[in-house]
Amino acid sequence: MSDQPPHRLPQRDRPWVMRTYAGHSTAKESNALYRRNLEKGQTGLSIAFDLPTQTGYDPDHELARGEVGKVGVSVAHKGDMKALLDGIPLGEMNTSMTINATAAWLLALYIATAEENGVERSALQGTTQNDIVKEFLSRGTYAFPPEPSLRLIADMIAFTVDEVPKWNPINICSYHLQEAGATPVQEIAYALSTAIAVLDAARERVPAETFPRVFGRISFFVNAGIRFIEEHAKLRAMGRLWEEIGRERYGVTEEKFLRMRYGVQVNSLGLTEAQPENNVIRIVLEALAVTLGRDARARALQLPAWNEALGLPRPWDQQWSLRIQQILANETDILDYPDIFEGSKVMDGLVAELIEGARAEMAVVAEHGGAVAAVPYMKTQLVESHRARVGAIESGEQQVIGQNVFTTTEPSPLQQGEDGGILTVDPAVEAQQRDAVRAWRRDRDGGEGGPATALDATPSAEVAAALEALRAAAADPEANIMEPTLAAAKAGVTTGEWAAALREVFGEYRAPTGVADAAAAPGDAALDELRDRVERVSESLGRRIKILVGKPGLDGHSNGAEQIAVRARDAGMDVVYEGIRLTPSRIAQTAVQEGVHVVGLSILSGSHRELIPQVLEQLRSAGAEVPVVVGGIIPKVDADEMLAAGVARVYTPKDFEVSRIMGDIVDLVADRNGIAATA
Amino acid sequence: MSDQPPHRLPQRDRPWVMRTYAGHSTAKESNALYRRNLEKGQTGLSIAFDLPTQTGYDPDHELARGEVGKVGVSVAHKGDMKALLDGIPLGEMNTSMTINATAAWLLALYIATAEENGVERSALQGTTQNDIVKEFLSRGTYAFPPEPSLRLIADMIAFTVDEVPKWNPINICSYHLQEAGATPVQEIAYALSTAIAVLDAARERVPAETFPRVFGRISFFVNAGIRFIEEHAKLRAMGRLWEEIGRERYGVTEEKFLRMRYGVQVNSLGLTEAQPENNVIRIVLEALAVTLGRDARARALQLPAWNEALGLPRPWDQQWSLRIQQILANETDILDYPDIFEGSKVMDGLVAELIEGARAEMAVVAEHGGAVAAVPYMKTQLVESHRARVGAIESGEQQVIGQNVFTTTEPSPLQQGEDGGILTVDPAVEAQQRDAVRAWRRDRDGGEGGPATALDATPSAEVAAALEALRAAAADPEANIMEPTLAAAKAGVTTGEWAAALREVFGEYRAPTGVADAAAAPGDAALDELRDRVERVSESLGRRIKILVGKPGLDGHSNGAEQIAVRARDAGMDVVYEGIRLTPSRIAQTAVQEGVHVVGLSILSGSHRELIPQVLEQLRSAGAEVPVVVGGIIPKVDADEMLAAGVARVYTPKDFEVSRIMGDIVDLVADRNGIAATA
Repeated sequence: MSDQPPHRLPQRDRPWVMRTYAGHSTAKESNALYRRNLEKGQTGLSIAFDLPTQTGYDPDHELARGEVGKVGVSVAHKGDMKALLDGIPLGEMNTSMTINATAAWLLALYIATAEENGVERSALQGTTQNDIVKEFLSRGTYAFPPEPSLRLIADMIAFTVDEVPKWNPINICSYHLQEAGATPVQEIAYALSTAIAVLDAARERVPAETFPRVFGRISFFVNAGIRFIEEHAKLRAMGRLWEEIGRERYGVTEEKFLRMRYGVQVNSLGLTEAQPENNVIRIVLEALAVTLGRDARARALQLPAWNEALGLPRPWDQQWSLRIQQILANETDILDYPDIFEGSKVMDGLVAELIEGARAEMAVVAEHGGAVAAVPYMKTQLVESHRARVGAIESGEQQVIGQNVFTTTEPSPLQQGEDGGILTVDPAVEAQQRDAVRAWRRDRDGGEGGPATALDATPSAEVAAALEALRAAAADPEANIMEPTLAAAKAGVTTGEWAAALREVFGEYRAPTGVADAAAAPGDAALDELRDRVERVSESLGRRIKILVGKPGLDGHSNGAEQIAVRARDAGMDVVYEGIRLTPSRIAQTAVQEGVHVVGLSILSGSHRELIPQVLEQLRSAGAEVPVVVGGIIPKVDADEMLAAGVARVYTPKDFEVSRIMGDIVDLVADRNGIAATA
Repeated sequence: MSDQPPHRLPQRDRPWVMRTYAGHSTAKESNALYRRNLEKGQTGLSIAFDLPTQTGYDPDHELARGEVGKVGVSVAHKGDMKALLDGIPLGEMNTSMTINATAAWLLALYIATAEENGVERSALQGTTQNDIVKEFLSRGTYAFPPEPSLRLIADMIAFTVDEVPKWNPINICSYHLQEAGATPVQEIAYALSTAIAVLDAARERVPAETFPRVFGRISFFVNAGIRFIEEHAKLRAMGRLWEEIGRERYGVTEEKFLRMRYGVQVNSLGLTEAQPENNVIRIVLEALAVTLGRDARARALQLPAWNEALGLPRPWDQQWSLRIQQILANETDILDYPDIFEGSKVMDGLVAELIEGARAEMAVVAEHGGAVAAVPYMKTQLVESHRARVGAIESGEQQVIGQNVFTTTEPSPLQQGEDGGILTVDPAVEAQQRDAVRAWRRDRDGGEGGPATALDATPSAEVAAALEALRAAAADPEANIMEPTLAAAKAGVTTGEWAAALREVFGEYRAPTGVADAAAAPGDAALDELRDRVERVSESLGRRIKILVGKPGLDGHSNGAEQIAVRARDAGMDVVYEGIRLTPSRIAQTAVQEGVHVVGLSILSGSHRELIPQVLEQLRSAGAEVPVVVGGIIPKVDADEMLAAGVARVYTPKDFEVSRIMGDIVDLVADRNGIAATA
């Protein structure tokens, strides 16, 4: 307009939606946190649910032990959701929910809460993450097999496009692919392939004239790593390919539906436990990748806190990350200009390179039969890429400041407070929530004054009918799961009941680990030396060293465990790795049956305090006298306790040298079996 | 080469020189700090000198009281310089010295130390700041009048171009212009105008064939603020204009001499005392302005610490800022590409706009007779720009996160340690250094066992001869000051003796304050209300409220004091502002003579603990019963002590609302004079 020069916008852009990924303990505590965050200038909510809620178990289920309220808030029914959102104006809020297998259920609880508060569902804005393919590939909070999982997504898309038209029913996640080791090309290719699988499934469930709107409601949840120029190019490349897919594969023509919309959580993989204050620097730079250029700017952003590799963030830590967004949006000038990379030769070159690479990789996925069928292929590729990354950091080829270079440090004042610089969830929360969900069922089922209703008690007739309707809809491929799900939410059904009903119909599932198919490692001196040691100790043992790698509890972040399993195999050990979500008793049984020499456990959800003692106890009572090593996000005080309780070694994110860990384990096995030191 | 695509470099660029602006207390303590910083990966040194060293006073001079070792290290003679650089390989080091009025002297001490360590002067690499114009405009550590100051610079240029050919004899500072409020256009225009004044002076002192090399040795010291896209454009614009000046004004043709070389310290003005952790975010973003695009990338970078607005940084704080540089250089991909903005329409537009603006402003400076003659003009412009900035923050038009918006905060763990999050210089340092310089003179002058030689004692014959030669060279416009300065350094002359000799020849100087010529403020509601209050109280007093604004000590950072003075005048007060570097007794005398109602003192150097009690004492003994208010970088514990000692109010950087401060002062005057409250 007027005489505005072309290098400035007529008016400053509005910033992206600013969120903080938050939630822990109870709905009431999380609600207080959300209100405080909104007062500090946050413009949207991002709800973190605990693992039982994410995987469809009530707080009183065996698998929920140690996990309730840990990595997020526990929401077992509409009463919890109501408490969680108390006082928050749902008609104006923009809420992102990191929820996948149970997304339909949590959306139903959200709608039910809104409607009970007098807000119409058509006014609701937000996003359910709901990308199940990446759960199989990386994050591990799936509940049902791939096909019915995809059908649930398609049902939600078909339901929301008319009923909750401002809702993003799915956020295709390239985010977790990067966390699992993906290169930028893999991130683009696998995310877009997933989107195609989802759209192909959705196309069968909506009228043709509705489909362009469906396409327009698909959003993405991306990652932004420290190589922020290339990362920005990645988003530009992704946007161009998305538009191309819309036009060419689906015949969408409306510009507004063709624009790629995405939210972001920046990279966690690159955050370090060593010199953790350095993470603030990384997070600022990573936020640039998704905000610098207007043509590929994020719609919503949430940033991790500096102490994510140490434990849960405190309110101050979250405030600090919110300030990053506010300074970027309100103090810098990035919102003042049209796209700053328009015309940039370097950017255009990078984008073209990524597009070419992604097209080729998408073709390979298509040859495998599309994203769902290609899960084993993609998983193997990710494990390989992650191995390359881990190897580059071990060798020093890839520098991580404070971790593998410039490691000399002054003590950090950030960790010298009484809390050690993190928030700890009150261990009493689990028992409280267990009692609370039982009380909920009792009250709901009219059992006033009687004993709390256990998980397997008979529900009231209304609840039973709602669950029956749910099962019927699940069994009918033509039905949409959402209406019976909403009815169940309103009837007071619990998260565990809803998921159990669907598990009955859909069955359960165990995802591929990618470990067996990973190619043999290229030899290097450290690995050769390690192989020799494994060989010598195996000879003395009379058989090959055998290691059980296990992930107890509900935590599905298996990337670390997979790298340990792959390296153990590369070093010549026999490896037993059964994937995620193992009960302590299952681990002990396997250890005995397989006759392993050592057990390696990985836990990232903070539930080590509860789960590790259980594994030790089960091993003892099964008569397995094998050493146990543990890896995870484990504060020093907890590590000391575990060592005192009999754990042989504890590794945390600062132990990045996988070959050194392996060497330790070989020595440990030698030592426990009376074999002389090998190094 | 080969099949490298054009959007990638054949090999990754080498990073800039990484420094930390550091130094305090004694040479020995600073040396330990430098060694520690170099071990942590720093690749250059940046020496901070204390104010007595910067302004040419020995630690036992009256004006040095309270300032010794405070904002930097005290270096009084070659013995100190030797201790400061002990164990540091001067043949390989790249050393920046923030030194201006006494630059010739400190360079001589550096050369003398190198030569005594067996390193030839021709091997020395580094920079002396040496931009005296900006000292008159902003920083205030001048010692001599403009003309001889410029001659000293020209002498250094003529000397180093052949003798120390890898040395940058001057770093033209746009840095301090931004700190004084300059817009990007003003920064470019005034810095380049200063460079022209320096080059014109140098041209007369070197052979014509040497001059292109002289041009090639001029470097710049720039600022990078939070609007980092525009800031990057500023550097590109500056580089283009610099090349144009080289070609057109000076006929330089060699490409390598025409390239603008610059070092950076990012913006301090925008760092806040409120929520100081937010400063880390700002510093990261500001570093981008000078590193993002290869065509205008800094040669050297030093970053302030998060706590600069609170006090002196501790080693951990400095480490954290070094990590910003290392992560940017070694973890991100910015060094992997050719210039990322080549072809960018927005960037080209911004650069063109800035070039046009800067050309026009340079023409105005030229009309005033060049940079030296235009000091009063430029000063007034800077005071005006700064007033606009302060006003925009007061009104909220310019947002500063945590300061004037989003002020709700959790308590910061960064400030909860025993040290309050800053380093405090041991007050015993001053007495030690005072004794040490006297012992140095005594030993030097052969007075073994006798009393320490005071400042005015008779020096040895060798020293006397060296000082005489120095005076002679100073008095001879054809002579070069450097050789006698070097001889004096080697003879053991002290910093104070060297500067005193030159003061004898050159005289002293007081720079314009820019306050008197600042235009009247545009009216706004807050100011109108303030004027009314001033009017009412003045009426009751029987004459206009009169305020003395003073800067005691050697601290020349006068921007804050100037804004207070200008606002007081705009509010209708009578203002007495005599500029910087006033002794406590002078302030008391003026207060009495002028009959002021209130005294406002500003100190940013950390010497408030020593100087404020002296001012109070002098006022008391002069019988002036006027309230004293103090502004500066003052830790809470010090503020409490000052209030207990009789200071009426203490303001720190978090008090950004100048009109509110003025209102307080009006109330204070009313209260002390028995006039009813006015608000």
